[in-house]
Amino acid sequence: MATQTKPILHGYFRSSCSWRVRIAFALKGIEFDQVPVNLIKDGGQQLTDQYKGLNPMQQVPAVQIDGITLSQSLAVIQYIEETRTGPRLLPADPKKRAQARMISDLIASGIQPVQNLYVLQKIGAEKVQWAQHFIQRGFEALEPILKETAGKYCVGDEISMADICLVPQVYNAERFKVDVDQFPTIKRLNQTLLKVDAFKGSHPSCQPDTPAEICT
Amino acid sequence: MATQTKPILHGYFRSSCSWRVRIAFALKGIEFDQVPVNLIKDGGQQLTDQYKGLNPMQQVPAVQIDGITLSQSLAVIQYIEETRTGPRLLPADPKKRAQARMISDLIASGIQPVQNLYVLQKIGAEKVQWAQHFIQRGFEALEPILKETAGKYCVGDEISMADICLVPQVYNAERFKVDVDQFPTIKRLNQTLLKVDAFKGSHPSCQPDTPAEICT
Repeated sequence: MATQTKPILHGYFRSSCSWRVRIAFALKGIEFDQVPVNLIKDGGQQLTDQYKGLNPMQQVPAVQIDGITLSQSLAVIQYIEETRTGPRLLPADPKKRAQARMISDLIASGIQPVQNLYVLQKIGAEKVQWAQHFIQRGFEALEPILKETAGKYCVGDEISMADICLVPQVYNAERFKVDVDQFPTIKRLNQTLLKVDAFKGSHPSCQPDTPAEICT
Repeated sequence: MATQTKPILHGYFRSSCSWRVRIAFALKGIEFDQVPVNLIKDGGQQLTDQYKGLNPMQQVPAVQIDGITLSQSLAVIQYIEETRTGPRLLPADPKKRAQARMISDLIASGIQPVQNLYVLQKIGAEKVQWAQHFIQRGFEALEPILKETAGKYCVGDEISMADICLVPQVYNAERFKVDVDQFPTIKRLNQTLLKVDAFKGSHPSCQPDTPAEICT
């Protein structure tokens, strides 16, 4: 049975969407193999015909699991949520589940896609200001929402898909020098979550494909 | 009990994300009230402080339902899926559910956010070519995926959230004059779905806020 083999994550250490999947696997205690797809080297290994077969969008991640290939990180996360045991990645209460999905989508649809590598390459010279603008705008919306929904984590006191989306987005914010101190709830949640093993072990600074010179 | 009152959809007739929610309500047979938020008039009614209280992202839709306010259309759709009876909006089989979510997110994260009103306003003079490029690119990825997953509808023979995302995105494609004939599966699915009552009655051409001159 295909379900008995380990899932394979095709991803990139620095990709925030790949990191989401690594966190989810770690929270669920699922062993997986990683195949690095270097988004920069050779003009971008996601552009090869071979990779296009895995994900026609030519983005990471793509995950081979249980005999199917899934792209789109939130689809992967919710698939393992629905097929694997281990800690819940969405709250049991329907309203809280909705809030966790709303926060996840605010990041996964409202922020990340507008500041991803492909878009920034199209933007060209103004790319840093563009990324800063969209992250800043997204965080200005996210902060008051999180003020309402957060407990210890983004939605109440249980780690959820919302947290899985938040931490990699804060990492992107810091890369683009957005001042996260403006957003005390986001900052507090990020600091709390970065102490959790599943977030630490999956961090871009310590992946198999992290270049030695930035590996910590 | 708040659950006894009708949900209120704050949306705009032409917004593809508002249309997604209208389709989902129609498929589930849920009565709802519509409050129009004109994205163009008065410089954009989504920018008022009042609306910002409903959705800090200052985008449509926002939905008041069961005492909570949700933005992000897929969070709304999955909330009604989990709390209301009526036809399923996600397949029962976990792999097919994952595929439906993947297709939904390919559109909702991979295409729509990069061609929405706010981004196009930032792009300025080149906005039509920008929108065409990103819709074309997204459909080139979507077509081979749908070739694998589709039956009568996007995933097998049951209407799902993927179909709810597809039709409004094809509407956007046509507005920006992307040639949908290049994508036979997308074209066929769209034509089939546009004959379904829930898609017809929710169409931008016949909403309470559709201007009389384009109302059909």
